[in-house]
Amino acid sequence: MKPETHLGQSPHRIVGLVDGIFAVAITLLVLELHVPELGREVTEAGLWDALVHLGPKLGMFASGFVVLGTLWIGHHFQFHYIRRSSRALLWINLVFLLVISSLPFGVALIGTYGAMRVACVFYGTTLVLAMTCLLIQWRYAAGPTRRLVDDDIPADVLAGLRNRVVMGMVAYGLGVLLAFISPTASVIDYAVTPLLYLLPARFDRHVRAEG
Amino acid sequence: MKPETHLGQSPHRIVGLVDGIFAVAITLLVLELHVPELGREVTEAGLWDALVHLGPKLGMFASGFVVLGTLWIGHHFQFHYIRRSSRALLWINLVFLLVISSLPFGVALIGTYGAMRVACVFYGTTLVLAMTCLLIQWRYAAGPTRRLVDDDIPADVLAGLRNRVVMGMVAYGLGVLLAFISPTASVIDYAVTPLLYLLPARFDRHVRAEG
Amino acid sequence: MKPETHLGQSPHRIVGLVDGIFAVAITLLVLELHVPELGREVTEAGLWDALVHLGPKLGMFASGFVVLGTLWIGHHFQFHYIRRSSRALLWINLVFLLVISSLPFGVALIGTYGAMRVACVFYGTTLVLAMTCLLIQWRYAAGPTRRLVDDDIPADVLAGLRNRVVMGMVAYGLGVLLAFISPTASVIDYAVTPLLYLLPARFDRHVRAEG
Amino acid sequence: MKPETHLGQSPHRIVGLVDGIFAVAITLLVLELHVPELGREVTEAGLWDALVHLGPKLGMFASGFVVLGTLWIGHHFQFHYIRRSSRALLWINLVFLLVISSLPFGVALIGTYGAMRVACVFYGTTLVLAMTCLLIQWRYAAGPTRRLVDDDIPADVLAGLRNRVVMGMVAYGLGVLLAFISPTASVIDYAVTPLLYLLPARFDRHVRAEG
Repeated sequence: MKPETHLGQSPHRIVGLVDGIFAVAITLLVLELHVPELGREVTEAGLWDALVHLGPKLGMFASGFVVLGTLWIGHHFQFHYIRRSSRALLWINLVFLLVISSLPFGVALIGTYGAMRVACVFYGTTLVLAMTCLLIQWRYAAGPTRRLVDDDIPADVLAGLRNRVVMGMVAYGLGVLLAFISPTASVIDYAVTPLLYLLPARFDRHVRAEG
Repeated sequence: MKPETHLGQSPHRIVGLVDGIFAVAITLLVLELHVPELGREVTEAGLWDALVHLGPKLGMFASGFVVLGTLWIGHHFQFHYIRRSSRALLWINLVFLLVISSLPFGVALIGTYGAMRVACVFYGTTLVLAMTCLLIQWRYAAGPTRRLVDDDIPADVLAGLRNRVVMGMVAYGLGVLLAFISPTASVIDYAVTPLLYLLPARFDRHVRAEG
Repeated sequence: MKPETHLGQSPHRIVGLVDGIFAVAITLLVLELHVPELGREVTEAGLWDALVHLGPKLGMFASGFVVLGTLWIGHHFQFHYIRRSSRALLWINLVFLLVISSLPFGVALIGTYGAMRVACVFYGTTLVLAMTCLLIQWRYAAGPTRRLVDDDIPADVLAGLRNRVVMGMVAYGLGVLLAFISPTASVIDYAVTPLLYLLPARFDRHVRAEG
Repeated sequence: MKPETHLGQSPHRIVGLVDGIFAVAITLLVLELHVPELGREVTEAGLWDALVHLGPKLGMFASGFVVLGTLWIGHHFQFHYIRRSSRALLWINLVFLLVISSLPFGVALIGTYGAMRVACVFYGTTLVLAMTCLLIQWRYAAGPTRRLVDDDIPADVLAGLRNRVVMGMVAYGLGVLLAFISPTASVIDYAVTPLLYLLPARFDRHVRAEG
């Protein structure tokens, strides 16, 4: 058990790639914020107006950031318990990252066409897909056969993590449905859902005790 | 043997740079997906059409993502067994990363000119080059002299890893040849080849047992 | 207590994401430096003029770089002492990173409209916010209850780290106020403040002794 | 001596930020390679011509990549021996990274205006600055007082590392001078210099023995 020389099938390198892709995807969101071009006769009032005009884009930037952040936190908690790796885990993460790295596009889309049903459905579907990947990963790793988690983790802790993912899936899925009634309601749903993860989880206590 | 203070010639830092470059290259693919600009009179149908129109680009994004992902997995498995580093290994990785970091350009090229023979040959050649780097690395590190891998790894495990790289080389090389007959066949070859790596490898068992 | 297999609630992964986002945000600053387009009849003198013309942008690039660098150093020193993690710490870091990843926009804004009061107030407010996040994090982690730091760290070391953050908050806040009198003074304040962190801190000695 | 919980003043986090910035800077080089826009009536010959036309840009991409790669290798070897950290080391690295992250601009500049003396002088000066940072770092860390390296490293190993940095400084400095005679000679100098680092160094043997 040479931990340091053992790079390969421990989950460490997956985590490295995942953190890297999250870092880039999160920071790419800011590329949608363009400095307004106001020419030479710019006035204080003109620049102020231009920045106020950027408000909705800034809002979507912040919202997209928090959405990505909570997805990262979710992945983070799962890998707190995942101790081993496998070819299937690599591929689940690859598909998860494919969805994650498409999110800057989705955020830009809804930042531009937030009032359109099509944009809300597209973005929401992406978020449901991301959550589905996390659910599949958790089922694969920590389901009844406990393929990749240790035997001494209490079953209700594992179930607690699963429920948090299901919570997000349902909430984002609701946003997709809301889009057909009111795109605004849908956008609000996508902005509020990540804040649900501010709520403490029952498994936080277990994580803390272990730490 | 102070593992933690020993940053240098252990392969850890190569892995860090490689993971970082893969993370950036993979996420840069999404920059090719531009939010359509439809002006103020946009309709739901118009946005839907624009997104459907983006379909092929989305497909190339997903395909390029999976191609890069399998190259990362290949590198990952090799470094599961590579225990030491050397100047030559650094340079092999540098050339490998040069090819990898050019892939977002290659993917964008084929996403735009997928029907052109020239684009298919260019992209396929890049993929063959990437695989060749992995083959050279493996030959250097795990060839008959076992420069950088441990003596107790069974020879058939090392041969198994080599064969997986050769498989990709041959498959991508076939895509280059196909380009002269039919660019479409070539594009399909590039999209399907990475999925070959979903197949379990015989050495998976060894990796698992070690883990 | 298997340190290597314990990825989750140790602060290591937060640090990984933070370093990644800083690396990307810092490097994105350079995207504001566009190679001048001078057409075919370019002369040596013309290119020289164009580069001299880029001077202020280069200056803002360097200044934004150092501002981000000192924020990274501040985060770095705090995590030198933070030994555990928690849901609240994850969220504090998420908000901190939201501010950090918006900084390339702020730097580009002030690089373009540095003579405007509105731009100076916007940028300075972002910097004060970043410092506030660090202060909240430190209060949460190393305040009277010492939630996340070890008991054996001397109180004056912890207070020293807090004071360094307060120093930056006050200095950047002063820049915001200065903007109402003279935008130039404000820009100078933002450029000089990070250099304050070149000054040795009293806790450097403690950090060194521990190392 | 709890290595895993000790994130702070060990050089690990510097290395993390450095690797991240190198990864992003290296990958940003590819953003200069734009897929040619040839409209709908594109022919195989037209695309081929366009790609051949991209040749010099591809060359500069590869050359800039290898330049950055050898700078990374240089940093890598120095941190093989640097065992401790300090405020000064953080700042030396910050200035080094400032130069590194400006290199994508420098590479784009010389890729566009490689025939101009001004561009060659600008780029070469940046490279000399990067090497100077490495020299200052090495003098600070491994000079007569051996501030940050262990006492048991033979003096000729430390001198060997210094000489490799001086070699690059001289070679790139020569390129700056050559620019005044012939920009082409200067560009060739910048392309050939990194290849000098392919030569084995005498300290490689020491690094290997330690590993």
